[in-house]
Amino acid sequence: MNVTDIAKRTYDHGWRLDPIVRSLLDTDFYKLLMLQMIRHLHDDVQATFSLVNRTRTVRLADVIDEQELRDQLDHARTLRFSKKELIWLAGNSFYGKARMFAPDFIAWLADFQLPEYELRKVDGQFELRFPGPWTHTTMWEIPALAIVNELRSRAVLKGRGRFELDVLYARAKARLWDKVERLRALPDLAVSDFGTRRRHGFLWQRWCVEALKEGLGDRLIGTSNVLLAMDNDLEATGTNAHELPMVLAALAGRGGNDAAIAAAPYQVLEEWRAHYDGNLLVALPDAFGTAAFLRNAPDWVADWTGFRPDSMPPIEAGEQIIAWWQEHGRDPREKLLVFSDGMDIETIERTYHHFHGRVRMSFGWGTNLTNDFRGCDPAGGAGLEPISLVAKVMQADGQPAVKLSDNPAKATGTTAEVARYLRIFGQEGMNARTPEV
Amino acid sequence: MNVTDIAKRTYDHGWRLDPIVRSLLDTDFYKLLMLQMIRHLHDDVQATFSLVNRTRTVRLADVIDEQELRDQLDHARTLRFSKKELIWLAGNSFYGKARMFAPDFIAWLADFQLPEYELRKVDGQFELRFPGPWTHTTMWEIPALAIVNELRSRAVLKGRGRFELDVLYARAKARLWDKVERLRALPDLAVSDFGTRRRHGFLWQRWCVEALKEGLGDRLIGTSNVLLAMDNDLEATGTNAHELPMVLAALAGRGGNDAAIAAAPYQVLEEWRAHYDGNLLVALPDAFGTAAFLRNAPDWVADWTGFRPDSMPPIEAGEQIIAWWQEHGRDPREKLLVFSDGMDIETIERTYHHFHGRVRMSFGWGTNLTNDFRGCDPAGGAGLEPISLVAKVMQADGQPAVKLSDNPAKATGTTAEVARYLRIFGQEGMNARTPEV
Repeated sequence: MNVTDIAKRTYDHGWRLDPIVRSLLDTDFYKLLMLQMIRHLHDDVQATFSLVNRTRTVRLADVIDEQELRDQLDHARTLRFSKKELIWLAGNSFYGKARMFAPDFIAWLADFQLPEYELRKVDGQFELRFPGPWTHTTMWEIPALAIVNELRSRAVLKGRGRFELDVLYARAKARLWDKVERLRALPDLAVSDFGTRRRHGFLWQRWCVEALKEGLGDRLIGTSNVLLAMDNDLEATGTNAHELPMVLAALAGRGGNDAAIAAAPYQVLEEWRAHYDGNLLVALPDAFGTAAFLRNAPDWVADWTGFRPDSMPPIEAGEQIIAWWQEHGRDPREKLLVFSDGMDIETIERTYHHFHGRVRMSFGWGTNLTNDFRGCDPAGGAGLEPISLVAKVMQADGQPAVKLSDNPAKATGTTAEVARYLRIFGQEGMNARTPEV
Repeated sequence: MNVTDIAKRTYDHGWRLDPIVRSLLDTDFYKLLMLQMIRHLHDDVQATFSLVNRTRTVRLADVIDEQELRDQLDHARTLRFSKKELIWLAGNSFYGKARMFAPDFIAWLADFQLPEYELRKVDGQFELRFPGPWTHTTMWEIPALAIVNELRSRAVLKGRGRFELDVLYARAKARLWDKVERLRALPDLAVSDFGTRRRHGFLWQRWCVEALKEGLGDRLIGTSNVLLAMDNDLEATGTNAHELPMVLAALAGRGGNDAAIAAAPYQVLEEWRAHYDGNLLVALPDAFGTAAFLRNAPDWVADWTGFRPDSMPPIEAGEQIIAWWQEHGRDPREKLLVFSDGMDIETIERTYHHFHGRVRMSFGWGTNLTNDFRGCDPAGGAGLEPISLVAKVMQADGQPAVKLSDNPAKATGTTAEVARYLRIFGQEGMNARTPEV
């Protein structure tokens, strides 16, 4: 009995668009945690986010049709949180805690919509900017990245044969499962999907996360993707991002106040711990350089649960932080390191074995989980190689925002302002490396 | 929009059986060619076929549930050729020839049904016998093999997780496509699917054949599976099998007539060329040993289009046959060799390069096309390793049937009768090798 669902086929015939982002929960969990705090403390801040393609050799505007990009962005702007989603956000426990999101925040989300965008082509790249209230522009980061990345995949795969595509995904599945089998050899592993922003596509990310759930069991501690967490009864994971110290430093630096810039990273932590606790007290140390951050940190920072080093090789970063904890009389075995910068099977294994027994660890596995098609494309070529695409805050209330990071290749900001921040924080420990994708 | 086809789900709930063989065309093309001739010339012969598992270490009756096997065999007995199938057999061209099947044969097929079977368990194996008229028992060979092989796959995979299964097939797809990419490097390749009998499962064979069609284009010259040929607009390929000389020799040997046994292989060819011509004039030389066959062959055998060596290493067999053609003053470049014994990517490549330019070649690719899951099973183990399962004619009109082959491990027949055939044909060139699966 061959069954064709006539209604579905008829519906499909009329498709104008195959939407990439279909829910406002299809974003990273940390965006919601940050948003609640931003709305509470910085409701009045205007912040502009901008798409930056660090992989300049890939001329995105030559690959992706501008109208298709507009259609997808426009479609994302039509989305609202559904009742089911809001009920789940209100009723679910996150990080072991009920009522993570306050009722008034949930009520505010009910009216949320993504704000307008500005798009033009410049020299083969898209200049895609999101100006507006920080409470709204911050929410563009993940859907904008997911849309551009998936449009690129779709463009590269357009017109391919049915079996060629089948083999492409077969190889990618086999490739991921080989990694799963290696990860099974690490008994105390804790890994989380951090791959939403750089994913090959939504359906592929879903496959990857569900495969990890079956293949790793408890060792998959969650996914940063809120929609996938909800749909698969997984923990939603993530804490906070560079945009917090970047915006707070930009605001603090108005009128030449360098001391306030130097204090901003710790102000972020004070604001954060007024909202969250436990395993959410994980600090990003590298916004303006890890060495400076640790050197100037008040002692209470060592009471936080852990750190998420994000721009230094993981073993180097971990050793530096462990030494700092020990100098401050804390036992690293009670502390947590979250590794999330360009991790893949080899770096996870190496880092795991290096620190096993000395510190608690978890791995945020991103691009190399949800967008690793190396050697998988029957047609060859580099069209499916992931690119280093980010959406960063560029200014706050008219002040340029800066990120230095431990890797100057990941720095953002105007030249003058970057120089100013380098004077304030120093350059200790900064080494240029090709940004991990 | 999530669409569940309620009617289909309801229908599925009531499944008693997921049938393995769903059409009488799900068989090898040579069975139909032979059947037309058997019905014409040997309508009155009783022939018993029997399942033989040469891989004794796999205790099939411990793996496969007897009742499930009965259910599948019983379901196959309910099948009839559909009108569409008969119209296609009558109207399609085979090997470039219209009306390959005579109207009276087509009319006879309309009433065809698979005859009864005898099944019991003996020492961990199934004793599965098909006694009855040759015109009917011959048609059990392929469905019986396909059913037992697929039931084994299903038993091994029962209870596996959804992603484990997905990865299994992903790896197998990647594995096959790697072979496809290597085969693309052979510009004059002609390959045909011969994998029905040993397939992992019907749906997997269909994937393999459709993948070859997309991946190899014209270099896929067809499939032996008639149903897949019809559904995919491919050529149906195949000529004849050992059962013809085996039955004719058994009948000829009644009353101690050894000379008639010696003549039987050539009688088969005379009968065949009275029915078919062109590229269907391909002889199996090895039923009672290739050396003896060639030594005693009348000169007109060298006028045939080619040979299908089936139990000797391909290069050795090809060289022997080419030398024989040359001795008989024929140009091998006008002749065809069909290699079909345990071929895989390495042997295809090696044989192709060895003979390229010296003789026309095609490859019948069987088990290693449709049942190669080596290294693919996430659970490990040998449960999906193909086994050397055959269905052979055991007696004809009460006389034991014998096959010697160039590989004594592939010999069948009673000890006494095998000894008799060895006296008649000699043992030249026979070397025991593990039977290729």
